[in-house]
Amino acid sequence: MPSHYRNFHNSVPWLILFLEVVFFVIFYFSHYDEVVSSMFYPDFQDVNHMLIFGFGFFLTFLKRYGFSSIGFNLLIVVLGVQCSMMIEELLLFLPDREREVYLRRIIKATLSLSAVVISTGAVLGKTNPVQLSLMTVMEIVAFHMTRWMHTTFLQVSDNISMMHVHLFGAYFGLAASSRFSEPLPGSEKNASTQKSDLLSMLGTLFLWVFWPSFNSVIGEDKIKAICNTYFALAVSTVTAFMLSALTSKDGKFRMTHIHSAVLAGGVAVGYTACSIKYPWIAMILGLLASLITILGSYCLPRCLNPVLKIHDTSGVHFTFGLPSMLGALAQIVLLVI
Amino acid sequence: MPSHYRNFHNSVPWLILFLEVVFFVIFYFSHYDEVVSSMFYPDFQDVNHMLIFGFGFFLTFLKRYGFSSIGFNLLIVVLGVQCSMMIEELLLFLPDREREVYLRRIIKATLSLSAVVISTGAVLGKTNPVQLSLMTVMEIVAFHMTRWMHTTFLQVSDNISMMHVHLFGAYFGLAASSRFSEPLPGSEKNASTQKSDLLSMLGTLFLWVFWPSFNSVIGEDKIKAICNTYFALAVSTVTAFMLSALTSKDGKFRMTHIHSAVLAGGVAVGYTACSIKYPWIAMILGLLASLITILGSYCLPRCLNPVLKIHDTSGVHFTFGLPSMLGALAQIVLLVI
Amino acid sequence: MPSHYRNFHNSVPWLILFLEVVFFVIFYFSHYDEVVSSMFYPDFQDVNHMLIFGFGFFLTFLKRYGFSSIGFNLLIVVLGVQCSMMIEELLLFLPDREREVYLRRIIKATLSLSAVVISTGAVLGKTNPVQLSLMTVMEIVAFHMTRWMHTTFLQVSDNISMMHVHLFGAYFGLAASSRFSEPLPGSEKNASTQKSDLLSMLGTLFLWVFWPSFNSVIGEDKIKAICNTYFALAVSTVTAFMLSALTSKDGKFRMTHIHSAVLAGGVAVGYTACSIKYPWIAMILGLLASLITILGSYCLPRCLNPVLKIHDTSGVHFTFGLPSMLGALAQIVLLVI
Repeated sequence: MPSHYRNFHNSVPWLILFLEVVFFVIFYFSHYDEVVSSMFYPDFQDVNHMLIFGFGFFLTFLKRYGFSSIGFNLLIVVLGVQCSMMIEELLLFLPDREREVYLRRIIKATLSLSAVVISTGAVLGKTNPVQLSLMTVMEIVAFHMTRWMHTTFLQVSDNISMMHVHLFGAYFGLAASSRFSEPLPGSEKNASTQKSDLLSMLGTLFLWVFWPSFNSVIGEDKIKAICNTYFALAVSTVTAFMLSALTSKDGKFRMTHIHSAVLAGGVAVGYTACSIKYPWIAMILGLLASLITILGSYCLPRCLNPVLKIHDTSGVHFTFGLPSMLGALAQIVLLVI
Repeated sequence: MPSHYRNFHNSVPWLILFLEVVFFVIFYFSHYDEVVSSMFYPDFQDVNHMLIFGFGFFLTFLKRYGFSSIGFNLLIVVLGVQCSMMIEELLLFLPDREREVYLRRIIKATLSLSAVVISTGAVLGKTNPVQLSLMTVMEIVAFHMTRWMHTTFLQVSDNISMMHVHLFGAYFGLAASSRFSEPLPGSEKNASTQKSDLLSMLGTLFLWVFWPSFNSVIGEDKIKAICNTYFALAVSTVTAFMLSALTSKDGKFRMTHIHSAVLAGGVAVGYTACSIKYPWIAMILGLLASLITILGSYCLPRCLNPVLKIHDTSGVHFTFGLPSMLGALAQIVLLVI
Repeated sequence: MPSHYRNFHNSVPWLILFLEVVFFVIFYFSHYDEVVSSMFYPDFQDVNHMLIFGFGFFLTFLKRYGFSSIGFNLLIVVLGVQCSMMIEELLLFLPDREREVYLRRIIKATLSLSAVVISTGAVLGKTNPVQLSLMTVMEIVAFHMTRWMHTTFLQVSDNISMMHVHLFGAYFGLAASSRFSEPLPGSEKNASTQKSDLLSMLGTLFLWVFWPSFNSVIGEDKIKAICNTYFALAVSTVTAFMLSALTSKDGKFRMTHIHSAVLAGGVAVGYTACSIKYPWIAMILGLLASLITILGSYCLPRCLNPVLKIHDTSGVHFTFGLPSMLGALAQIVLLVI
């Protein structure tokens, strides 16, 4: 074992302890609301279920990295949620910030963590826990800053600025992954087995089912957001199967295509889920999202990644980056119209 | 690879594209409701969770078919839901049809898809995606036609006619499976491993947990339906363990018995869940359902299937067919009394 | 196969049949409420999901015992819930007992079953189904008796006496496990594989996500209970990772530590979840709980277990016993203050 690796590992507990002490000091001044309603409870449950169980499951596809994926995912989420809650607590000192219901603050903190979890997908198998913990803190701070700038200077609504998570997470992860050395092509670290792929596919289904909850959780028009997300997901799933059969040589479905493209519709419709009025618009968005994801999965690893020296382990660029770019574009078009 | 197989595969994307274009044209005239309530949201989530994740999980028991089960299940559900929504949209042109809340229409469409998913269990490992997609469309059209006839001519309530899914799905699947050639006895296609059985058993638990939601989702007396389904499931589970130990030679439990009989109570009580007034009636139904399922799992593959040349991969005849027959009988008895 | 083993197995169906007949006779006099509200439905779903699916998943870590864990868990839960409902029905003959809503009685029965499921963890791999079924009935009767004594003589609130499940389950399981012979050290019965550990870790995540529901399900201040449980779980997770890296030689995380200590916070905060007013108190409880769990996982198997001749298969003593002891202590301190 190289010595720098051991050093890294020895600093893990102290880093975590330091973070925890900081959180603790801030939380010491926090208290629960007097009057509460339990209406946010199912949202809380769904969001947690999706981030902790669903993404942990989703990221199990690396043979030698199954436990790490699940365990680190849990560590990142709990560290990040505390960090995010702490930043929110500090932001209350700014003028014009209103105190929100406590449970809703946990929900929002968990939502913003999905950016970090997506970034993790890009650096999976190349980072140690210290790097992951530091990345989590840095990314959460950066995400809160961009959100604050969006809502303050650009007058973006709270919901829309939250749906930035996919875009932010994907490109932050790509930027971070260019800092880490790529594993050797034949190395075991990068390999997946049939069993781990199957587990990961089950995790994808899990995310699929919870995506409508995710997109509707803080918007105003909940039902519209659910229906739109559902249709976008449905059409992007159908398109994923269609394109996968078209582009593979023997006409069979490729698991990797399905794995990344079935969720594309949900990502793409994130920004606009509350405002789209007709199902067919959501369906077209889902179709386009699936299309660019499959195209991206062919082009990016061959054309872009070698040039920029990026190694994107679970393909977050085309799974989350491109569809959310499309979604942002759609949001702009809708605003203009 | 035989050439006709390749031809089949080459036509998959075009078939899917054709269906999707048809759906799109119909959905172009569809729009969301103005006033909505979010009260249907948990039902929507549970039904989706059960069909997409639960049944996908449930069908993973074939060693060489794990991914296909999960992937095809997803494809079938999303294609079918769109198809079912489209038929509902077209049926609105009939006189005396009222427009329902959009989310509720998705819920009903998803519910009716369980017929197709059950049928899939009978033909698993013998069909290609083209056949599955065509079967989905045909079965959904046939199911809507029988439902329409039931509610129009026989004055059956909407809820009861929906609970037809198990009966319809099981026998449609059996009829379809007689059209496909049986895999050779020693072939790998039919084999399951210990790991895949374990995953499938987890999937069964998943379905078990969601069955009360399933039975109560469109009935009037939600709580009664939940309690009745719970008791029927509980007693059929206990009976399944008891009969499994009694009928096996060494007194051990057989996984296959448990796998098929624990759900029998939920299936049998489907029709009557909203109207049974005492828990003991539901318990007796659960006991009888489990009994005929275990008896069926001994008799049917030996006596009936060779005669009718049916090969029922996951035993949908005794898992879903017989218990729902019992349930229909119970409903008739209750109506007479 | 030894002959006494076969005898045991042969009596399984008759034992189950006898129990089922007793339940049936009692349930014959039970009926549903006239007026019902569906407000308890999500609680019912979460509690069932957690006990049947979550704990079944959690207990899959023994290589040769995967199916048995899942199957027996289901059998125990359904037998136990009926047994618990029956006792409740009989207790109604006592003076001053009020009839509760039916669905809520099922929820409470399921909650009390978690004691049995925890006990099962201590005797896993050493018991046959007859012993498990008898243990279930005995434990449920004993648990109801202690609850009745608590609420009648000690004026403990209903919620607090229910949260006794972890303490009661862990020590009942330990007492029971001292009655069974320990498997030989090198035997396969005690072994786990990487795959089974991974599944078990996924099950742990599942329990993690549902723990806030569990703690809040019958308390008055639902939201406070959820937030407190969440913070306790979060801090105990972070502490588990920290201590695991500190105490292992190479600075790596040990799966077994994570497996047992991430849930410690939720267990510890069980009693006090509804009454803690500041998040930092829950956080300290979570930290202490994780600490004593990891310390316990080092000390107990080496110091205490050989002395008392206990073989604690899944470590329920330090996973559930010690943290709930801490929780009880915290509750007393809070009452005194």
